[in-house]
Amino acid sequence: MAGKIDWYDEFVKPDHKPINDEMVCLYYFEPAKGITAEEAAGRIASESSAGTWTTLHDLPARVEKIKAHAFEIKGKYVKVAYPLDLWEPGNAPQLLSGIAGNIFGMKALRNLRLVDATLPEKYIRSFRGPNHGVKGIRSILNIKKRPITGAVPKPKIGFTAAEHAGVAFETWMGGFDLCKDDENLTSTSFNRFEDRVEKMAKLRDRAETQTGEQKDALLNITGETNEMIRKARLLHDNGWGFAMIDVVTCGTASVQTLRDECADLGIAIHAHRAMHAAFDRNPKHGISMYFLAKIMRLIGVDEIHVGTAVGKLVGTKKEVSGIAGMLRENKVAGPYLSQDWGSIKPVMPVSSGGLHPGLVPPVMNLFGNDFTLLVSGGIHGHPAGTRAGAAAVMQAIDAVMEGIDLNEYAKKNKELKQALDKWEYLKPR
Amino acid sequence: MAGKIDWYDEFVKPDHKPINDEMVCLYYFEPAKGITAEEAAGRIASESSAGTWTTLHDLPARVEKIKAHAFEIKGKYVKVAYPLDLWEPGNAPQLLSGIAGNIFGMKALRNLRLVDATLPEKYIRSFRGPNHGVKGIRSILNIKKRPITGAVPKPKIGFTAAEHAGVAFETWMGGFDLCKDDENLTSTSFNRFEDRVEKMAKLRDRAETQTGEQKDALLNITGETNEMIRKARLLHDNGWGFAMIDVVTCGTASVQTLRDECADLGIAIHAHRAMHAAFDRNPKHGISMYFLAKIMRLIGVDEIHVGTAVGKLVGTKKEVSGIAGMLRENKVAGPYLSQDWGSIKPVMPVSSGGLHPGLVPPVMNLFGNDFTLLVSGGIHGHPAGTRAGAAAVMQAIDAVMEGIDLNEYAKKNKELKQALDKWEYLKPR
Repeated sequence: MAGKIDWYDEFVKPDHKPINDEMVCLYYFEPAKGITAEEAAGRIASESSAGTWTTLHDLPARVEKIKAHAFEIKGKYVKVAYPLDLWEPGNAPQLLSGIAGNIFGMKALRNLRLVDATLPEKYIRSFRGPNHGVKGIRSILNIKKRPITGAVPKPKIGFTAAEHAGVAFETWMGGFDLCKDDENLTSTSFNRFEDRVEKMAKLRDRAETQTGEQKDALLNITGETNEMIRKARLLHDNGWGFAMIDVVTCGTASVQTLRDECADLGIAIHAHRAMHAAFDRNPKHGISMYFLAKIMRLIGVDEIHVGTAVGKLVGTKKEVSGIAGMLRENKVAGPYLSQDWGSIKPVMPVSSGGLHPGLVPPVMNLFGNDFTLLVSGGIHGHPAGTRAGAAAVMQAIDAVMEGIDLNEYAKKNKELKQALDKWEYLKPR
Repeated sequence: MAGKIDWYDEFVKPDHKPINDEMVCLYYFEPAKGITAEEAAGRIASESSAGTWTTLHDLPARVEKIKAHAFEIKGKYVKVAYPLDLWEPGNAPQLLSGIAGNIFGMKALRNLRLVDATLPEKYIRSFRGPNHGVKGIRSILNIKKRPITGAVPKPKIGFTAAEHAGVAFETWMGGFDLCKDDENLTSTSFNRFEDRVEKMAKLRDRAETQTGEQKDALLNITGETNEMIRKARLLHDNGWGFAMIDVVTCGTASVQTLRDECADLGIAIHAHRAMHAAFDRNPKHGISMYFLAKIMRLIGVDEIHVGTAVGKLVGTKKEVSGIAGMLRENKVAGPYLSQDWGSIKPVMPVSSGGLHPGLVPPVMNLFGNDFTLLVSGGIHGHPAGTRAGAAAVMQAIDAVMEGIDLNEYAKKNKELKQALDKWEYLKPR
């Protein structure tokens, strides 16, 4: 239609050199039929900053200062530079509404994916980041070098609070640090949150006495914001050092709120990512897991699930190790854009999903030691039960840290042997 | 691998007849290579309820009572019935973590889409739904029959608070009910929320005096939860009847919190859906806009964006009218699953995105009268400015309500004539 004249071309500057204060986003994009790459890129920059779809009668003078600019259009990738003034300090949902909002639904694009963003120093300083981070989590649990270990009672849901606490006890007695709720278990009629918190606290104290080790749990407070705050306080009052939140289904507004509440209580936030694959699985559209994890470091979760690359869930080795690096490093060089995290603390990556003792070597090879290793079906499915299963994982970790092949180590460690026999451990090739 | 025996088959019951209390979800699914439809369906039911990926040593007795069951596998669609006991009353994020969580990332599936869910009566009663809804919004604005009208100052962002208020005044004086913030405008250095709220309130009072009509605004409080609450109170204190929230980027946890806060203040929630297309655009994967809108009615927004079917954003007529019906009806028959909303109030659908006066007839043909019509570029781009643009839209609405062709009506209404000339109104064929 002749009336549909856009001013998208004013949002494209192929040779733009971003200045310090600008936020630079990297998008993958495919223009719709009949749309040039330049027009599509301009529309992304326009719709996500100061544009509209038609010519206007009046234009405020300031628009020139806050327009985003698409630049470096290379094949199906484009960078967009956003002036800092567009963004409200400390407001993560607003940022998403801009750089990850309406643009995904534009007819001018067939596909669009937000891959990464370089968050400018000034913007980062308006957020507090993790209160504990990698060092803080190690300090809560008093674990110096090895990966942190945790397990979810399986099946995911169905235990009474007492049964659940019993499984936790076995998990701790097998050598594990953490017992974790699953993402769909919050408070149910047969396993009330309050009951679980109290019953587990008693058995935690017993396990600590018997092992001399620090034991903790990742209890799922996911829910309405004030209810989460109430539950976080209950966790604190019962001596727990962590709270678990399904950060995607709850959303960034409430995670920001809980970050400060939990910091006041001194407890760390374990971020589960349920629902992420609704928007990050298609490599051509949506939001990358890499960027989701970045936002979560910014707003201050202390650890977050990033996949395994080897278990039941999607995610390649390159993706997973890229995310782990972005979470743990202070100056990130890649694999996408660079990021200087300033004084924002490093976040502990969490590896979870379909793991068993035989998979410990490749997972540790991918993550190193600074990560939380969750093994659930892979311990509760052990032929001799949960405690033996947890022991088998701890043995596998010891083997890797001592540089010994699992099959070799299994000769003197029967729990590991039984696990490898059940789950067919394949020698590293 | 031989060790990878699943018990997914226990989660498939082809002839299952769901009982009253069960929640039934409709999924579109494509199994991964080498996986049968039955196995894939079983894995969906398992991972979203009480499953795990391997055989277990101990199984709690209760699991039999809370397992989900996949049934009616028809081509690429499957229904899954979830026992009510799985879900915590009044906890929307938990529901999403179950039925829209990990399952999207399972390797056993190539694609998976949550299309719809029938929410059982008992579950619905644990939520409060909208405080105002369709009738409440009409009552706030004192508009009996015609669609509610609103406009976003364009460009989306860039005005000072004073300029912004000036555009709002012109919008109101042209006959519009509402002036709306854009999704990426919250509070910026050049247009602070507090300034905008106060400056607009003064001009609102003037516009009300001069027109004798009720005028209001959709000011964007999107942000961290407590900050949203603070801003909602400020809106109330300045006499505003609405608050706008980017509900997807904020997330369901905070929207639930704000629902109650806003109800206490007597203000209605306008839900913007920025970011929805990150997970609802691919028809084979993610979460449907239909289901997103359903969750938002459940947790209690008063109006929500659903698309236009004719403007700049994606969404077909069938999709858009299906969503509008689900939001407004008490007993929904389709197009997917049935839904009895009980005492949960109807929600006002909002049509927005690339509209102009010439598109008013097809949009009203699609929505009827019970909707909020947002026209922004299509009024501010009017050759004679915003006030004339708003007048042109009101004239177009009058024409449709009186059953008169726009071109005919434009003969005696010059603002409409100018708008049709600029945007090339096409006669209905």
